[in-house]
Amino acid sequence: MTIRDERKQQTRQTLLDAALKLMSDGRSFVSISLREVTREAGVVPTAFYRHFRDMDELGLALVDEVCLNLRRLLRDERLKAGAGHIAIQSSVMMFLLYVRQEARYFDFLARERLSGSVKIREAIQREINHLATDLTVDFRLFPEMQNLPSDDLNMIANLVVNTAINWCGEILSLPAEQVRLQYELSMRAVKQLRLIFVGAMHWRSDKGEIAKTAS
Amino acid sequence: MTIRDERKQQTRQTLLDAALKLMSDGRSFVSISLREVTREAGVVPTAFYRHFRDMDELGLALVDEVCLNLRRLLRDERLKAGAGHIAIQSSVMMFLLYVRQEARYFDFLARERLSGSVKIREAIQREINHLATDLTVDFRLFPEMQNLPSDDLNMIANLVVNTAINWCGEILSLPAEQVRLQYELSMRAVKQLRLIFVGAMHWRSDKGEIAKTAS
Repeated sequence: MTIRDERKQQTRQTLLDAALKLMSDGRSFVSISLREVTREAGVVPTAFYRHFRDMDELGLALVDEVCLNLRRLLRDERLKAGAGHIAIQSSVMMFLLYVRQEARYFDFLARERLSGSVKIREAIQREINHLATDLTVDFRLFPEMQNLPSDDLNMIANLVVNTAINWCGEILSLPAEQVRLQYELSMRAVKQLRLIFVGAMHWRSDKGEIAKTAS
Repeated sequence: MTIRDERKQQTRQTLLDAALKLMSDGRSFVSISLREVTREAGVVPTAFYRHFRDMDELGLALVDEVCLNLRRLLRDERLKAGAGHIAIQSSVMMFLLYVRQEARYFDFLARERLSGSVKIREAIQREINHLATDLTVDFRLFPEMQNLPSDDLNMIANLVVNTAINWCGEILSLPAEQVRLQYELSMRAVKQLRLIFVGAMHWRSDKGEIAKTAS
């Protein structure tokens, strides 16, 4: 990377950070103007257009950035654990620490997923679907799950991903100094993921029984 | 109720409806002004103050209204099913139909839960906790679950409630004419709830096993 490229990259990052900073008091992305972002970043509006066509494009860049990092993190975790194994406790703990560390990004994702512009909501939903698809592939490596229909694996992956998204919302709503509450939330998250796996391991064999007692 | 009371009640409802209408194009509650609400409702601002102290109080009334109706709906479903039984399929279907029917309310809940003012977010969280507590009480009536520690029942109830909230977001993001997608989403929701119950039924006995293979 040349110095010029590097500086360009820096300006881009400054613009992304500025947008996140403006949202950190609870404002929605759609309420933030291009002019506010450039003012916060300390660059002229023309500089903005060298990086993004409009605010929507900047929003999409934010989605990409957080999801790319997250998928990288999950891939590393997966490699460490080895095929067909999942280190539930350490994965959940690490994920939640990461969420808190990158709080601004995850706050943006969690909120804009439901209330953002159509383009941004769709981009977030697409990333969530990718995460679920990655997970479905992982599931096939578990002996207990490898003979389940794809449809069911997908349903389980969707449940895992959405449960994890919910943890994000919950952990980010806790004040930073409430360490005890964060710890309790993490422990509950570990149990919830474990419960989903217990359900998954017994999925096929129990369908009839559950259908009888709790149709 | 006297005619005067009735008319007062009507104006109140008109104000609530006006606020929901203003939010229906994706605007957040916090971005809506008191003056816009009264204009939309066709009443003078003074009339607003006969019902609500400020916009926050109107928002809290919206939270109360939807949660009261929802708890009533769930209670009726519970009575119909009988203690220790849960009609998973019909409950999930009915819940999702209700969510679509009251789309504006649930849209408000789902979005303001994460991005609303602190007061409103707290009120929504409180209602969610009530729903989870109700559910915990129900769980005690299941022979398979009645000897689980309260902490675990709470963890399971929290998972169920948050999963249901996620369905709301998903079903409301589907266009009304996409009946097929709505049906598929409902079927997946039924399976997800069933999976959680399968996990719950095997929760204690499996803890060790899961801890071994998937710690």
